[in-house]
Amino acid sequence: MQNQGIKKIVLAYSGGLDTSAIIPWLKENYGCEVVAFVADIGQDREDLVGVEKKALQSGASECHVADLREEFIRDYVYPVLQTGALYEGSYLLGTSMARPIIAKAQVELALKVGADALCHGATGKGNDQVRFETTYTALAPQLKVVAPWREWNLRSREALLDYLKERNIPTTASLEKIYSRDENAWHISTEGGVLESPWNAPNKDCWVWTVDPLEAPDRPEQVTVTVEKGRVVAVNGEALSPFQCLEKLNVLGAKHGVGRIDIVENRLVGIKSRGCYETPGGTIMVNALRAVEQLVLDRDSFKWREQLGLEMSYVVYDGRWFAPLRKSLQAAAESLAAEVNGEVVLQLYKGQVTAIQKKSPNSLYSEEFATFGEDEVYDHSHAGGFIRLFSLSSRIRALNEKQ
Amino acid sequence: MQNQGIKKIVLAYSGGLDTSAIIPWLKENYGCEVVAFVADIGQDREDLVGVEKKALQSGASECHVADLREEFIRDYVYPVLQTGALYEGSYLLGTSMARPIIAKAQVELALKVGADALCHGATGKGNDQVRFETTYTALAPQLKVVAPWREWNLRSREALLDYLKERNIPTTASLEKIYSRDENAWHISTEGGVLESPWNAPNKDCWVWTVDPLEAPDRPEQVTVTVEKGRVVAVNGEALSPFQCLEKLNVLGAKHGVGRIDIVENRLVGIKSRGCYETPGGTIMVNALRAVEQLVLDRDSFKWREQLGLEMSYVVYDGRWFAPLRKSLQAAAESLAAEVNGEVVLQLYKGQVTAIQKKSPNSLYSEEFATFGEDEVYDHSHAGGFIRLFSLSSRIRALNEKQ
Amino acid sequence: MQNQGIKKIVLAYSGGLDTSAIIPWLKENYGCEVVAFVADIGQDREDLVGVEKKALQSGASECHVADLREEFIRDYVYPVLQTGALYEGSYLLGTSMARPIIAKAQVELALKVGADALCHGATGKGNDQVRFETTYTALAPQLKVVAPWREWNLRSREALLDYLKERNIPTTASLEKIYSRDENAWHISTEGGVLESPWNAPNKDCWVWTVDPLEAPDRPEQVTVTVEKGRVVAVNGEALSPFQCLEKLNVLGAKHGVGRIDIVENRLVGIKSRGCYETPGGTIMVNALRAVEQLVLDRDSFKWREQLGLEMSYVVYDGRWFAPLRKSLQAAAESLAAEVNGEVVLQLYKGQVTAIQKKSPNSLYSEEFATFGEDEVYDHSHAGGFIRLFSLSSRIRALNEKQ
Amino acid sequence: MQNQGIKKIVLAYSGGLDTSAIIPWLKENYGCEVVAFVADIGQDREDLVGVEKKALQSGASECHVADLREEFIRDYVYPVLQTGALYEGSYLLGTSMARPIIAKAQVELALKVGADALCHGATGKGNDQVRFETTYTALAPQLKVVAPWREWNLRSREALLDYLKERNIPTTASLEKIYSRDENAWHISTEGGVLESPWNAPNKDCWVWTVDPLEAPDRPEQVTVTVEKGRVVAVNGEALSPFQCLEKLNVLGAKHGVGRIDIVENRLVGIKSRGCYETPGGTIMVNALRAVEQLVLDRDSFKWREQLGLEMSYVVYDGRWFAPLRKSLQAAAESLAAEVNGEVVLQLYKGQVTAIQKKSPNSLYSEEFATFGEDEVYDHSHAGGFIRLFSLSSRIRALNEKQ
Repeated sequence: MQNQGIKKIVLAYSGGLDTSAIIPWLKENYGCEVVAFVADIGQDREDLVGVEKKALQSGASECHVADLREEFIRDYVYPVLQTGALYEGSYLLGTSMARPIIAKAQVELALKVGADALCHGATGKGNDQVRFETTYTALAPQLKVVAPWREWNLRSREALLDYLKERNIPTTASLEKIYSRDENAWHISTEGGVLESPWNAPNKDCWVWTVDPLEAPDRPEQVTVTVEKGRVVAVNGEALSPFQCLEKLNVLGAKHGVGRIDIVENRLVGIKSRGCYETPGGTIMVNALRAVEQLVLDRDSFKWREQLGLEMSYVVYDGRWFAPLRKSLQAAAESLAAEVNGEVVLQLYKGQVTAIQKKSPNSLYSEEFATFGEDEVYDHSHAGGFIRLFSLSSRIRALNEKQ
Repeated sequence: MQNQGIKKIVLAYSGGLDTSAIIPWLKENYGCEVVAFVADIGQDREDLVGVEKKALQSGASECHVADLREEFIRDYVYPVLQTGALYEGSYLLGTSMARPIIAKAQVELALKVGADALCHGATGKGNDQVRFETTYTALAPQLKVVAPWREWNLRSREALLDYLKERNIPTTASLEKIYSRDENAWHISTEGGVLESPWNAPNKDCWVWTVDPLEAPDRPEQVTVTVEKGRVVAVNGEALSPFQCLEKLNVLGAKHGVGRIDIVENRLVGIKSRGCYETPGGTIMVNALRAVEQLVLDRDSFKWREQLGLEMSYVVYDGRWFAPLRKSLQAAAESLAAEVNGEVVLQLYKGQVTAIQKKSPNSLYSEEFATFGEDEVYDHSHAGGFIRLFSLSSRIRALNEKQ
Repeated sequence: MQNQGIKKIVLAYSGGLDTSAIIPWLKENYGCEVVAFVADIGQDREDLVGVEKKALQSGASECHVADLREEFIRDYVYPVLQTGALYEGSYLLGTSMARPIIAKAQVELALKVGADALCHGATGKGNDQVRFETTYTALAPQLKVVAPWREWNLRSREALLDYLKERNIPTTASLEKIYSRDENAWHISTEGGVLESPWNAPNKDCWVWTVDPLEAPDRPEQVTVTVEKGRVVAVNGEALSPFQCLEKLNVLGAKHGVGRIDIVENRLVGIKSRGCYETPGGTIMVNALRAVEQLVLDRDSFKWREQLGLEMSYVVYDGRWFAPLRKSLQAAAESLAAEVNGEVVLQLYKGQVTAIQKKSPNSLYSEEFATFGEDEVYDHSHAGGFIRLFSLSSRIRALNEKQ
Repeated sequence: MQNQGIKKIVLAYSGGLDTSAIIPWLKENYGCEVVAFVADIGQDREDLVGVEKKALQSGASECHVADLREEFIRDYVYPVLQTGALYEGSYLLGTSMARPIIAKAQVELALKVGADALCHGATGKGNDQVRFETTYTALAPQLKVVAPWREWNLRSREALLDYLKERNIPTTASLEKIYSRDENAWHISTEGGVLESPWNAPNKDCWVWTVDPLEAPDRPEQVTVTVEKGRVVAVNGEALSPFQCLEKLNVLGAKHGVGRIDIVENRLVGIKSRGCYETPGGTIMVNALRAVEQLVLDRDSFKWREQLGLEMSYVVYDGRWFAPLRKSLQAAAESLAAEVNGEVVLQLYKGQVTAIQKKSPNSLYSEEFATFGEDEVYDHSHAGGFIRLFSLSSRIRALNEKQ
């Protein structure tokens, strides 16, 4: 597959071992100029320190860093939250939502610097290769794509370290790396090591952001979240940007061990994998949104929102972000979210988040209507007619059977 | 609506204040014989002590008690669990699943004793009237139905107590009763009182079965659950009947504060209500089933199981148990559950239940396939072709747009 | 239910026997002023001739006629067509879509003339009462509603004619009226008479607009329909308004016997009914839209459009037009329809309409890609990897079973 | 990919040009013994005449013909019909349903004769390669698979004819073959030639089985179809096997030009293709089944059946026959079909099939209930209560907004 006449390639660069090795590998195997692209989507600040220098030392001709944090939460995370998407019932799609925004910014840079190819460091058995390349395809089908992990034979950390050493490229990476991780403002994921057997419980090292619920504070803490049009707009009464809301809730959630899940999931590529995910602030947000929806959405709308979430979870997981279906699902969810306004008090305690108080100017709940007594909208006698017609086809079927 | 020539009526009798008053009320207003029917579906054992005597003292001509506990869990609860049904995302349908079995047994008694009518004590604003009467309609459309709460004007506890007092019918009921509750082997629900405003957090009195997570043991406890064909068949290695499994898990769950939810839900009759539900053993079961499914179900099957659960939640909530749709959903879920076999270790701690270890003879997860290295089923080069075709329509659309 | 202090009521008036009798009946039974409202949604022009005079002669204080024809097709019919809604697989929802626009305009008039109540002439066993009143409720819950057919005892044409005769109100209605019909620009429906048994085939009199396919021209005719954003905008190359497009296609369709269906359907109120529907122009439109979609929508989008259509069919049939769910479905469908642009040639012949030629600037079909040879987007070798991953979970399951 | 140590391979052989060339090609390139397998699923009888001899002449060591006609219709076609599956709204899945049964019988033969590999003649851009190989994978993952069209460079009829000529293998195939066709008892499909542009109308040569509606008899013909449990069991009163029913209806349908569709569809592999399909008997069957369902299925069941059909259409189209999802869908549909019993008279005329009379012992339609008058199950007054509760959430929302 090598040497397809590529002259200049833009690489989604993280500063880690893999993408550091990819730079010289691309130059040697494709004979092309390599431009490094670093997306800041809220990953560990350490990873960004000196990242440009690192890229250049590895042989990149340029390195561009783009701060995508607000855009990530506002335009990718929030729309997905409106649908209620949870992949296979629990995964909050932290990695899935990040890939399209990275790939999109990477494509934009490629077009700007006149590159003719794109490269990512995702492995050949994972979902991320699909998400990157599906975005590339949708936005710039004319650009070539190089996926080193599907081509090269550098199949171990040892091989990669040797590869860099031979080329005198400095790296801080060590041979020992038990877990494979992905991190951004929304979540951190952990795979590998002890997790490779689902019969092993996760150990302490599997968790990075959040405190163990067993070691979380013995006293619960409350936080107030304000929701407007299905989006979190304030925390404890303070109006904040989406990313700021998340940052604040991440701190609170992590402190109380909130937002851990440990699942086996179906990858898009047909195999199952096991991962631990930590989404502390996100988990609080989701609970707040669902609590407001309980007050606001009628029965039909609630069911529909669940259907939208189910569909959206697959679309996002698969990296089909720049497809008509994602836009349609988002349009449907935004329409429903128009009335999802309110305020929720959530209690954080030992790994749990519980919405304990909720209110909304659009609430369909009414104390007057819900309770025993007489009221203006509900007459007990209505129920008789309702039940009769609601069950009428059952009646007719049963009468038929008697005959 | 009164006096429709009813001669003998079977009442779903609980021994509580409402149904105790219904007995004389029926006799006076319909001039008919009243047969009391008590379904034992695992409610508070206290409620069953002397219940026959109570019924006769209230004026019933007979009182029949039926032990439906195993049937309830085996034939009503377990099939619903296979679908994964959660009404509006969280309610485990404890009351909803109980109504059809009670009503069915009541109908059977009515046919046996030659009654010509059926009566229940559900109120005129709730879901239960619909569930009872929909079952009556489906199984015995020829029987008349009396729903006193939609007819009489005894609209307060005071009125009911006076009514019994005037007739010298003894009752242990007191004037003060803040909460409205429903209890069976699966769950207990609490409504009313402080809960009438969603802006009020529940207080201690709102919870009956489960300990407050804040007061739960400081050390987590583990429990092993064995699943066969999507049904829980053993707890901690001991093979047990469905009801016995539930009993054992209820004790464990309650001790650790597991299974509390506090929600505002859409009733079938168009209003919203707020309730606290405790389903300790059930919550453990659900977590165990979902954990095995993570190992066993492929992507298509998982999504389909989620769709089945969504549909089933409405069917069950609405009391459409004896309808073709419920049977069809159940057939679909049973088919999927054929391979849902395995064992799960769950950790209970301060209100949380977490599946920490899981295995299955039908697991599609394979350490060999999931990890980095070479293996027999997955060649990295496959991914390139997969991605290409997976994103092909996006490519064609994008190429179109460029033109 | 009578005399609830109503002073002025707006009646959805058609000029027919039923609503003519309702005017004096309202005045006598409610002692209120009656304002007649006539919606022109394209029904038989005859029905509108002298309709104001008729209303006044029957005792109305005022009569307002509103021309809603363009609005009906543009804002009610077209959005539903974008979703592909077909109630129970075939009904094009002609009556269902009309009720909300009539009721909305009626509410607006009521608010303008200061009325305190609304009235319609729909019967007590049908869907239309639900559609009217659900709209009233959503738009003006403070207004009272009178539904004479659920109240009075004028249960035959004879009774109605006598009622008018006694009051010296002239009517052109005759005693004989075998079929019950509903007509607007989009369709005409026929129920009753011979159709009451599904074992009877419809006879000649059951069809009004369309020629019998057996008597349709022996030579087929072609018509070209232009579609923009999922809306029909031109017929045979002539740009026209939505209502004009429909008018033109109605003539063509009727001439060739296109658009007849004869079905038994589930009414919302729990009974089944049998009806014949004629939707000649609409049937051509639907075929044109689906043909363009075949070229434009990718697989995911196509399936999603079918799901939207399925949901929308129930929402519209039930009269839930002014509900959040309808808005959400419409937003989703509009999003998908953004690329549904193209031109279709349809052949009309003896009851059939067939799209025989189709093209679109957004077509994903490409002769180059579809055929045998080499091309730029599809390499045969991709398929091997695709198939391998597509069927990977089946492989793993099968390997498991072999062990 | 060649020579993987294959010793004996079973080829899905049709007797046509492609699979005739595959036999020598396999022997030369894989050095293996080739066993030909011919599935009789009702294709042109001509194709089966001398097919064994042809296979042996081409170099096969053995040739096995299996008569799968009854099994195909009974176990593959009928279950799909119960779900109502129509791929992308119209395609009756004739080719899709055939592949799994052929591949399954082929696998069984391979296991019986001790082969270690399987081969099919499907091209590299189509769906059939996926359907064949997905079945192989699910049933015998240990067997190797050879797909010559993705390997060789015999990319034209000319090349194939030369290839055979060089080897002195006789063939009746000619150089001219405009259309690509697939035929079995259920349908015949036609692709290629003039159809490659969707802007071209099909010409006379695109249709094989059915008469042009313009040349169909001028007098309509009626046929009576009997349905039991969602399966066609008799035609014009004569009880017949599934395949016999189909044969009889095929003759009638073809005579009247029934069952033609001309569509552009999304292939599973990401491209669109255009095809003409003729399914005369099948189209009559589908109309008969849907007609009985109109009488029998309640609203919930009808909607659910439509959802099942939508899901099933993708599962079957994709060749996911031996997957848990197909089994689950089928279980759900069989459950619903339990009451789908009845008789339908259909009129065939100039390309159209119309159900004109229908009856069922399980009909929920009742003349008495549907019509105007009083009856035992429906009291007009019920409707008021029904509407009130049906629209209650709209009322509450609207009242909220007024405040």
